[in-house]
Amino acid sequence: MENNLIVIGHVETPYKKLEDCPRNIDFKGPECRLVLRDKYEEGILGLHTGDQILILYWLDGSNRDKILQARGWDDDAEMTGTFSLRSPHRPNPIGAAIVPIKELADGIITVQGLDCLDGTQLLDIKPAIKLEKE
Amino acid sequence: MENNLIVIGHVETPYKKLEDCPRNIDFKGPECRLVLRDKYEEGILGLHTGDQILILYWLDGSNRDKILQARGWDDDAEMTGTFSLRSPHRPNPIGAAIVPIKELADGIITVQGLDCLDGTQLLDIKPAIKLEKE
Repeated sequence: MENNLIVIGHVETPYKKLEDCPRNIDFKGPECRLVLRDKYEEGILGLHTGDQILILYWLDGSNRDKILQARGWDDDAEMTGTFSLRSPHRPNPIGAAIVPIKELADGIITVQGLDCLDGTQLLDIKPAIKLEKE
Repeated sequence: MENNLIVIGHVETPYKKLEDCPRNIDFKGPECRLVLRDKYEEGILGLHTGDQILILYWLDGSNRDKILQARGWDDDAEMTGTFSLRSPHRPNPIGAAIVPIKELADGIITVQGLDCLDGTQLLDIKPAIKLEKE
């Protein structure tokens, strides 16, 4: 496995400290921007306003050793498996969000309501596939 | 960025060669199994049959230099940005699928219709968040 990750850009959000970040994606939340590095700008050709995209980003500073952890902020909460949670503390701290594109120009994609820190490193953007009808 | 990825397990699918892999996820497709490494088995505690999970996996052998590429298998097709496609050829070849859990036991999760090679390295499993109502 050639397992090094490449940073393709960064995410601009209003959140400067971890404790400011919301717990989850909020489609009505504040505007956030995906800023591609010059080299990758052309890579967003073919995306359009309104498209649902899956964004992958790197949750830096996470604890990567937790197999079990408390559910929620409460350390006394029942322990549960890391893979049953969206906690940033996981072996590969890759954040994932599916959001619609609000605006798109010059290597910058505007979306709403991401939950990560300002400056978060961007790993990938791809068209989202809709969930099975329930 | 501490940018090394950790392999938490592997995916068992019916596809031994790239040309056998379907183009996309198919919720009615054949059974596939997510097999956790011993160390990470406990991490699936708290997941249940029917839960929608987001699976991340590493698409080994991809070309990581493509910023533009042809849409579809046809090399003569119009060139478009890599981030507007779900092609495995991308700077960070991380595959993503949202599927329901069909069965779950002893560190093995059964799902249906993944599109990746047998033996694909598993990076993460997390509860899926539903798309905004359209």
